[in-house]
Amino acid sequence: MAGEDRQARGRALLAEINRDAANALFAELEDVAPDMARHIAAFAYGDIWSRPGLSRRDRALVTIAGLAALGHSQRELRAHVRNGLNVGLTPQEIVEALMHLTVYAGFPAAINAVLTAREEFAARGLLPLEET
Amino acid sequence: MAGEDRQARGRALLAEINRDAANALFAELEDVAPDMARHIAAFAYGDIWSRPGLSRRDRALVTIAGLAALGHSQRELRAHVRNGLNVGLTPQEIVEALMHLTVYAGFPAAINAVLTAREEFAARGLLPLEET
Amino acid sequence: MAGEDRQARGRALLAEINRDAANALFAELEDVAPDMARHIAAFAYGDIWSRPGLSRRDRALVTIAGLAALGHSQRELRAHVRNGLNVGLTPQEIVEALMHLTVYAGFPAAINAVLTAREEFAARGLLPLEET
Amino acid sequence: MAGEDRQARGRALLAEINRDAANALFAELEDVAPDMARHIAAFAYGDIWSRPGLSRRDRALVTIAGLAALGHSQRELRAHVRNGLNVGLTPQEIVEALMHLTVYAGFPAAINAVLTAREEFAARGLLPLEET
Amino acid sequence: MAGEDRQARGRALLAEINRDAANALFAELEDVAPDMARHIAAFAYGDIWSRPGLSRRDRALVTIAGLAALGHSQRELRAHVRNGLNVGLTPQEIVEALMHLTVYAGFPAAINAVLTAREEFAARGLLPLEET
Amino acid sequence: MAGEDRQARGRALLAEINRDAANALFAELEDVAPDMARHIAAFAYGDIWSRPGLSRRDRALVTIAGLAALGHSQRELRAHVRNGLNVGLTPQEIVEALMHLTVYAGFPAAINAVLTAREEFAARGLLPLEET
Repeated sequence: MAGEDRQARGRALLAEINRDAANALFAELEDVAPDMARHIAAFAYGDIWSRPGLSRRDRALVTIAGLAALGHSQRELRAHVRNGLNVGLTPQEIVEALMHLTVYAGFPAAINAVLTAREEFAARGLLPLEET
Repeated sequence: MAGEDRQARGRALLAEINRDAANALFAELEDVAPDMARHIAAFAYGDIWSRPGLSRRDRALVTIAGLAALGHSQRELRAHVRNGLNVGLTPQEIVEALMHLTVYAGFPAAINAVLTAREEFAARGLLPLEET
Repeated sequence: MAGEDRQARGRALLAEINRDAANALFAELEDVAPDMARHIAAFAYGDIWSRPGLSRRDRALVTIAGLAALGHSQRELRAHVRNGLNVGLTPQEIVEALMHLTVYAGFPAAINAVLTAREEFAARGLLPLEET
Repeated sequence: MAGEDRQARGRALLAEINRDAANALFAELEDVAPDMARHIAAFAYGDIWSRPGLSRRDRALVTIAGLAALGHSQRELRAHVRNGLNVGLTPQEIVEALMHLTVYAGFPAAINAVLTAREEFAARGLLPLEET
Repeated sequence: MAGEDRQARGRALLAEINRDAANALFAELEDVAPDMARHIAAFAYGDIWSRPGLSRRDRALVTIAGLAALGHSQRELRAHVRNGLNVGLTPQEIVEALMHLTVYAGFPAAINAVLTAREEFAARGLLPLEET
Repeated sequence: MAGEDRQARGRALLAEINRDAANALFAELEDVAPDMARHIAAFAYGDIWSRPGLSRRDRALVTIAGLAALGHSQRELRAHVRNGLNVGLTPQEIVEALMHLTVYAGFPAAINAVLTAREEFAARGLLPLEET
């Protein structure tokens, strides 16, 4: 597929799942690394997120787990919590996934991630979470 | 719940999803850190894996994603690939999740994880994977 | 031991070594992940910190070293600097341990950790540290 | 540019700088994740390594530094030591870059990387390195 | 060489490439870990940065790549972006190196690093970067 | 102090606590990075390990905790388990420290470290560990 198609497909997917965070990031990159925005759209979303074989909801779960384990990108993590809510993860599932990671990445990484998710939940008026 | 119940529940769950790997690890820990085996059973499996709120299949996905992103525990990752296959992940979904992590953890971490998963798939006679 | 005992023991230990930080964290978790607070109390403090075999002072040293090396949890690190001071580490020993980690985790991780410890020392009126 | 062009450009570049390692990796991926090989060629080499703005020699230096700091991918690191030698880094420069990282990533990560580089140097008959 | 020589050489090098950031850091360390400042000057700059075998520009590139990959030290990274500009890296080369790391450390680590570099570029009035 | 003094002091300390591992590593570095061996001796051991303010036993504990948390240097970790035993840590204390890190670095990092320590304990005929 042509490069323009990858861009278009990635930007369409971003517009669907997280328009505001993508626009904010792309605006910041505009004067310093505009090609990075293009690769985010074309590769991350146009190539990878667009693949069949795993649902968007599962991709959000994998992304959240990976970022929480790495621990160094809380802003990105918050954007993907927002993505996750937009593609069908419940806030309770996100919290449950992060509690699960206490075992594999340790409590501090998991606690940080829960507090980051909490910021997004608060901004959406989702707190307190109802027990499921 | 009493501590013995947590142990029992964790060991029952382990027996169900990955008896051989758990037994092999616990045997190695026996002469050096037997309490670590107890905490793995009671906390990791009795407390966390046993929680409602996320399916076993989703827990395996979160575990695989977290371990692949961290990159430092290929043996544990292989055991969780085996767990994942036992609780309903297809090998194609596992590979897809690892390809997804190229974006978030980089290609080397993702490639290592795919090659680790491949060892487990090979041991089970699953290769070549059929395209889905 | 019953789960309530683990909770009670963990909370008693937390109250002893770091009541304010624990209360602040648990309050934040209350509306988003109350069970995470329970596992922190029961597992991290009730099960692990309560074990014999290593003094509280040594456990604080291990915790500080581990968190400083990981580098991604400065807030947790600061709480454990406070714990450490409360269980018998001197500020000079904490700084010495972090300087030691320049060798193993690199200068940036060690510098970040020293600057985090410095915030806690400043809040306690311990600066400038006296040379020992 | 069309997707096939990215593939072709990436594979041409790989053939030029590291044909054997690429072929070996792609052969391993063939029965488990053939699309990963395609993304390595198209994105990593066709999109990124092919960009102007930084020489191949500098890209190899950046890659080696990043992988050595992460520490979890010694096999990938060795392949990039080979790439680096093929695009103009001297073995002495590679060692010097890794010694430089003692400051930023710590001695163990740097030592591991030097020992990995040494394997590649030995396979090429470059040892002992001459002092420069 | 005597220890005082290492100190003097390191401080001279720091004064040349990044006087303000070094002074700011050393002032913060003064009341908590003054020996850390001495080791930064003597080892990091007096021993390592002063070695022949790799240019200052290449050392800055290696440092930036290593710190961006680790992801946990954005303040240090910004200081080394400043160093890099002072020893001959162009802002475009720095951005290009960070885009290169999307492949090896993942997009979030690379994006964070670009946004950190952007802060330094903005403080110097370098934005928008001209395309090269 | 003069550079030769740092070397001599570092090598004397290494000879005291871990002659064999140091000699083996230095022999490997000889034909590829002999200056790295010099910096290990002069900086890591001559400057840092030789500092007052923390006992050797505590330095070994900090080193083991940091390396176990990072997870990427099992060979170095094993050498420091040996160091630790030589400077007064009991095998039970080492295991206890690693179990403690399950909380902060996660179970896989801690399990890997225990299995690495176990190799050293086995080589010394210390298994099974007696309970304390």
